[in-house]
Amino acid sequence: MKEKTPVTINAVVFDAYGTLYDIQSVAAVTEQAFPGYGDIITQIWRIKQLEYTWLRSLMRRYEDFSVVTRDSLAYTLRVLGLSYDATAFDRIMEKYLHLDLYPDASAALASLKGKKLAILSNGSSDMLNALVNNTGLDRVLNATISVDRKRVFKPAPEAYTLIEEILGARPDEVLFVSSNPWDACGAKSFGLNVAWIERVTPQAMAEACIKSDVVPPLTMFKALRTQMDELGVTPDHRIRALSELSGIVRQT
Amino acid sequence: MKEKTPVTINAVVFDAYGTLYDIQSVAAVTEQAFPGYGDIITQIWRIKQLEYTWLRSLMRRYEDFSVVTRDSLAYTLRVLGLSYDATAFDRIMEKYLHLDLYPDASAALASLKGKKLAILSNGSSDMLNALVNNTGLDRVLNATISVDRKRVFKPAPEAYTLIEEILGARPDEVLFVSSNPWDACGAKSFGLNVAWIERVTPQAMAEACIKSDVVPPLTMFKALRTQMDELGVTPDHRIRALSELSGIVRQT
Repeated sequence: MKEKTPVTINAVVFDAYGTLYDIQSVAAVTEQAFPGYGDIITQIWRIKQLEYTWLRSLMRRYEDFSVVTRDSLAYTLRVLGLSYDATAFDRIMEKYLHLDLYPDASAALASLKGKKLAILSNGSSDMLNALVNNTGLDRVLNATISVDRKRVFKPAPEAYTLIEEILGARPDEVLFVSSNPWDACGAKSFGLNVAWIERVTPQAMAEACIKSDVVPPLTMFKALRTQMDELGVTPDHRIRALSELSGIVRQT
Repeated sequence: MKEKTPVTINAVVFDAYGTLYDIQSVAAVTEQAFPGYGDIITQIWRIKQLEYTWLRSLMRRYEDFSVVTRDSLAYTLRVLGLSYDATAFDRIMEKYLHLDLYPDASAALASLKGKKLAILSNGSSDMLNALVNNTGLDRVLNATISVDRKRVFKPAPEAYTLIEEILGARPDEVLFVSSNPWDACGAKSFGLNVAWIERVTPQAMAEACIKSDVVPPLTMFKALRTQMDELGVTPDHRIRALSELSGIVRQT
């Protein structure tokens, strides 16, 4: 890791959910709707949401991310035996259009001024545009790219081709940034320069699992989705915070 | 569900892991190798094993199931901060060649005598042949089919085409049996008749999750992977045990 990239980085492209936007911020809304279940709903929902993007892509039954997000929430509430009305359901879904930005996101984007800046996300165009507008990122991003145009989800290579098609930047000129290990691997496998944000250290992970007879749902989620995967590829850069990006870009 | 299938079933094809073979039976070996961690290793391992099959298929980086199974075990032990030597690792892996049959598997297969009987599994040819021979199923199965030939994992449609190619049975003549909801949906989406084995009832699932601040890893696994998925398709038959299959086949 930390290899120097050979060419100049002209574009920095971000994953949205979990990278610029804190998906854990839905937990307040799920807890309000179903007291005592906020954490487990949030974790099962996110795990299944991603599973459904991969499964639907493989089954050639693409539906956009708003459908997958609704379906995975419906699954979660059913599994937990929770009954609900359409109003409660829609109130939870609505949070996806108002997720919290990570605290360091705006400053990191500002520090990259002069580069093409974009989002490439599994989100549907409608969801992403609403989220980006609601949080003011429309003022700093050159493009908000949804995989919708290809009707397949990341980490399929077709999804990453949209960066060149829409931003006009070759893969070797792009730094792709994701906290999702599978996404960082998919981008690297495709040929982008990749910075992976390691938000949970291996030490913290191992310590959280020492008592293994029971674990909180958030710990189980972290064990499944925050550590680098074994998929035969290694991202170029491993960073702890978005603020490290300007240093990487300046080196090129 | 429980619709009558229009044509005669001439072949019954089974998923292997979790359907005929109890993957939870590795827990004794993982517990022996890492006391106190047997359950969490078993659950994370299985969840990641499946994830890696889907991710590698989407990334076009197919490696066979023995590689994916090793990689997902390595991931699991790393996440948990457990150190190990090659001997301990290989002893755990070896269990995949000696998984326990579900108690009702042999009798169910015997009751279907006269039909073509096969396994279609994500497992590699070597793993499957060893497992089938070690457990005596080679004497009752007409074929043990690995997705290896297509270099893509279920639920990609290409995987299910192998049934007709190898058994010579048209999709509408085949009853496909799986306890894995994503596999049942993939088979149905492809066009097979499908029986899904519901081993954990919705009631039992919801009751296990009532205390949602902490849940045992096995409960989290069940919440993720034992309830019917929301993937836009519905299996034809929902059964509780393999012994119900002969009744379904007799009706056709």
